[in-house]
Amino acid sequence: MNFLGSHILSINQFDTQDVETLFSIADQMQPYAHRELKTRVLEGAILGSLFFEPSTRTRISFGCAFNLLGGQVRETTGIKSSALAKGESLYDTARVISGYSDIIAMRHPMEGSVDEFSKASRVPVINAGDGSAEHPSQALLDLYTIKKELKISGKFDGLNIALVGDLKYGRTVHSLCKLLKLYKNISFTLVSPDELKMPKEIVEDLLAAGHSVRETEDMETGLHEKHLVYLTRIQEERFSSQNEANTYRGRFRLNQSIYTAHCEPNTVIMHPLPRDSRAEANELDSDLNQHPSLAIFRQTDNGVLIRMALFALTLGVGKDIHLTSSKVDWYTDRRF
Amino acid sequence: MNFLGSHILSINQFDTQDVETLFSIADQMQPYAHRELKTRVLEGAILGSLFFEPSTRTRISFGCAFNLLGGQVRETTGIKSSALAKGESLYDTARVISGYSDIIAMRHPMEGSVDEFSKASRVPVINAGDGSAEHPSQALLDLYTIKKELKISGKFDGLNIALVGDLKYGRTVHSLCKLLKLYKNISFTLVSPDELKMPKEIVEDLLAAGHSVRETEDMETGLHEKHLVYLTRIQEERFSSQNEANTYRGRFRLNQSIYTAHCEPNTVIMHPLPRDSRAEANELDSDLNQHPSLAIFRQTDNGVLIRMALFALTLGVGKDIHLTSSKVDWYTDRRF
Amino acid sequence: MNFLGSHILSINQFDTQDVETLFSIADQMQPYAHRELKTRVLEGAILGSLFFEPSTRTRISFGCAFNLLGGQVRETTGIKSSALAKGESLYDTARVISGYSDIIAMRHPMEGSVDEFSKASRVPVINAGDGSAEHPSQALLDLYTIKKELKISGKFDGLNIALVGDLKYGRTVHSLCKLLKLYKNISFTLVSPDELKMPKEIVEDLLAAGHSVRETEDMETGLHEKHLVYLTRIQEERFSSQNEANTYRGRFRLNQSIYTAHCEPNTVIMHPLPRDSRAEANELDSDLNQHPSLAIFRQTDNGVLIRMALFALTLGVGKDIHLTSSKVDWYTDRRF
Repeated sequence: MNFLGSHILSINQFDTQDVETLFSIADQMQPYAHRELKTRVLEGAILGSLFFEPSTRTRISFGCAFNLLGGQVRETTGIKSSALAKGESLYDTARVISGYSDIIAMRHPMEGSVDEFSKASRVPVINAGDGSAEHPSQALLDLYTIKKELKISGKFDGLNIALVGDLKYGRTVHSLCKLLKLYKNISFTLVSPDELKMPKEIVEDLLAAGHSVRETEDMETGLHEKHLVYLTRIQEERFSSQNEANTYRGRFRLNQSIYTAHCEPNTVIMHPLPRDSRAEANELDSDLNQHPSLAIFRQTDNGVLIRMALFALTLGVGKDIHLTSSKVDWYTDRRF
Repeated sequence: MNFLGSHILSINQFDTQDVETLFSIADQMQPYAHRELKTRVLEGAILGSLFFEPSTRTRISFGCAFNLLGGQVRETTGIKSSALAKGESLYDTARVISGYSDIIAMRHPMEGSVDEFSKASRVPVINAGDGSAEHPSQALLDLYTIKKELKISGKFDGLNIALVGDLKYGRTVHSLCKLLKLYKNISFTLVSPDELKMPKEIVEDLLAAGHSVRETEDMETGLHEKHLVYLTRIQEERFSSQNEANTYRGRFRLNQSIYTAHCEPNTVIMHPLPRDSRAEANELDSDLNQHPSLAIFRQTDNGVLIRMALFALTLGVGKDIHLTSSKVDWYTDRRF
Repeated sequence: MNFLGSHILSINQFDTQDVETLFSIADQMQPYAHRELKTRVLEGAILGSLFFEPSTRTRISFGCAFNLLGGQVRETTGIKSSALAKGESLYDTARVISGYSDIIAMRHPMEGSVDEFSKASRVPVINAGDGSAEHPSQALLDLYTIKKELKISGKFDGLNIALVGDLKYGRTVHSLCKLLKLYKNISFTLVSPDELKMPKEIVEDLLAAGHSVRETEDMETGLHEKHLVYLTRIQEERFSSQNEANTYRGRFRLNQSIYTAHCEPNTVIMHPLPRDSRAEANELDSDLNQHPSLAIFRQTDNGVLIRMALFALTLGVGKDIHLTSSKVDWYTDRRF
């Protein structure tokens, strides 16, 4: 893929070379995200941040990434207050907002909506999640986290991972599978209630690409001998009723004692967040909060690097970031 | 009018010389809005963006215009979450927020509210729409669009236009009429359901100023021999019930075949947006989307220029913009 | 207290030396807040502005203060749209958002929530109000206002003040009492309905520190011989029902004639705002709006100075602000 001016809509656009390019730029973003350096490379540029479905974390992560490159953010949240509620087509919204922006990050509850929007946009569009379909920057930050946690220098071949939870509606695991499919000989253990299994076409794609897939409803054995376990939240907003969602909530829970009994001593624990910490769910217990293999907050930190890299590559400033950089001189000690 | 430090509340403040001044500054904003140049002229300044009634498009347009001049935006949206809901007077809100801001853009559902607010404000206030009353920057961007689309170099005298749709509640057409009134010998054809006719005092003002006005319920003949046709959406939020609004929705529709049959080959099509593209309304069909005379997205683009010019003139930096300008070096190809 | 890197959670952290340090930095912020100078000292820094309970005024005040130091603001408002609604713990939210931000300002409806949040945050957190508990920057701006209005150069010893209204739920008066407690020999007259009296532990603390406290339900006599009177709004959002709140609304009202009859000629009038100006409340009549002793809008203006000073001290740039400063050259005349 030529990143310059591209929409980033789906993991399907990426090959392993693209991933390598992106990760190498993400590495260079680290001193900026860690507040050692600051840059003005995108000073004067505007990110149109359109979150037609709420997502505090992802919205702020994109906005922060753009700010760290020196740019400004104009935001809209919610669908009710938007022109879409007055019958405006995605085509019109795209034509208008892309006239205001240099790049757009968009989340929308409807599958395919970001794709449709991008066709009418005059500036690059990054899909920040469209319904249960795709959320490519999440998959990329997940893979980047895997790379860093497992200290993988080149390919991801031979990885042995467990994906646990709502694999039907969890778009992050869909996008992650599509991304891992690009590599060789990966063992997937898919742990979910029978009704929330990974969509068949994704499983078939993995098998067709030569990976091994085991599906199970038993979490404990599913955890054995894994490099990493990736947990997900029940995507209650995708169920037809709260009751139906409640049926599955809390079915799989990882805590310190289960980890000790069934995981390798350094199996990496990931989760796309938010994790549901209410007693009835508690999919990932807080007794693991201090565990060195708990990578969930390094994941969200990495999200900033990946989004900075996506902005830098699509806007063609990947190599210019250091030209306007200078040292940060305010307080930046991190206390944890 | 002396723009410096002025509130921009109503089209009534403007004479033809003011319009010329504004349009000439707007012309100078083009390289900035087109991302050829960037400027820091308002670096450190803060726009207070108060949208007590939702309007994604207008809100982002103002914010983007201020960002493009180098300034920052602090925003509030919705009335429920604001102090107004706790019984605060517009006077208090104005005294407080004007202490935080260098200039304010404000929309409010109540007629006259922005005027009342401005009286207590310590910084210039731009009316971004007060109920069915005024929305001056929209009228100005509309006239600026007419100028550019019809390549009018001086006055707008002799223009022949049709205004179509909800002329009763559509404040954009009210403001546009007040603005066109300043010129000579304009022919207005007002096409609307009888119940949604242009307010009588506006029609009388136009006649008193020597313009010609024809009112009709028949769109097709209304389109004949026009330089431009300006369509509007049924302002459903102004009706007492959704049902009442539905009565009128879809009454007038312009599409390719009607355009071909009744318009001149190059009659300019304008619309303040959002256009209602639901099947039951579809006031401006998408089969005209590629038509070269469809000016609706150039209209919203022009909105940024006009708002930049209003900010620059009221804050007195119209002549200084180029002092801090430099070339944009990120990706800016527009794909449409 | 060493401000550098500190959370600002409670007035209890402050001693009189801290107050002096803060006020001296606030004094230096004046040319920036008054738009005589601008600075880039925090260019590249990000404020995470988390308002899980709405507060237009305080939110914009913090954001504006950060912008005036050159920084950017990433915001979230409301609790429904946040991950907290999906069962995320404050711990997780803090770990995540502090990874995006250089400093955080947070308001939350639950007492103690900001404290809990701060324990997991990797960057300094400023409490912008947690339920009925604390709102330290408000107390500090109130005291700063007292200092400036009464032209107090050193200590606040010997002050004679009346606090009027909902003293039970009004966290601003709680925080202010804790702050004044640090000084000597202050006379507090607490005017409230019996059911909305100042919490007993605060009164006892004041007495234990040697101050004098008089509690009364009679406002008129409570106003006599005061240096200042501090009015508050009925905190209706803290009552179990609107009806219960209505019982107290309008119980105490200050207007020009009461002021003339019972106050000293220059008794300073303060109010944390918003004031409820509906006829049934009207706790502070608009007929005092032009009174020179009405300090309520100077209070909100001072809030920007205090918040700038808190940011500057916790981020360690208090002394560097002038290094990147330059003159403001846009329109800044204040018309009132």
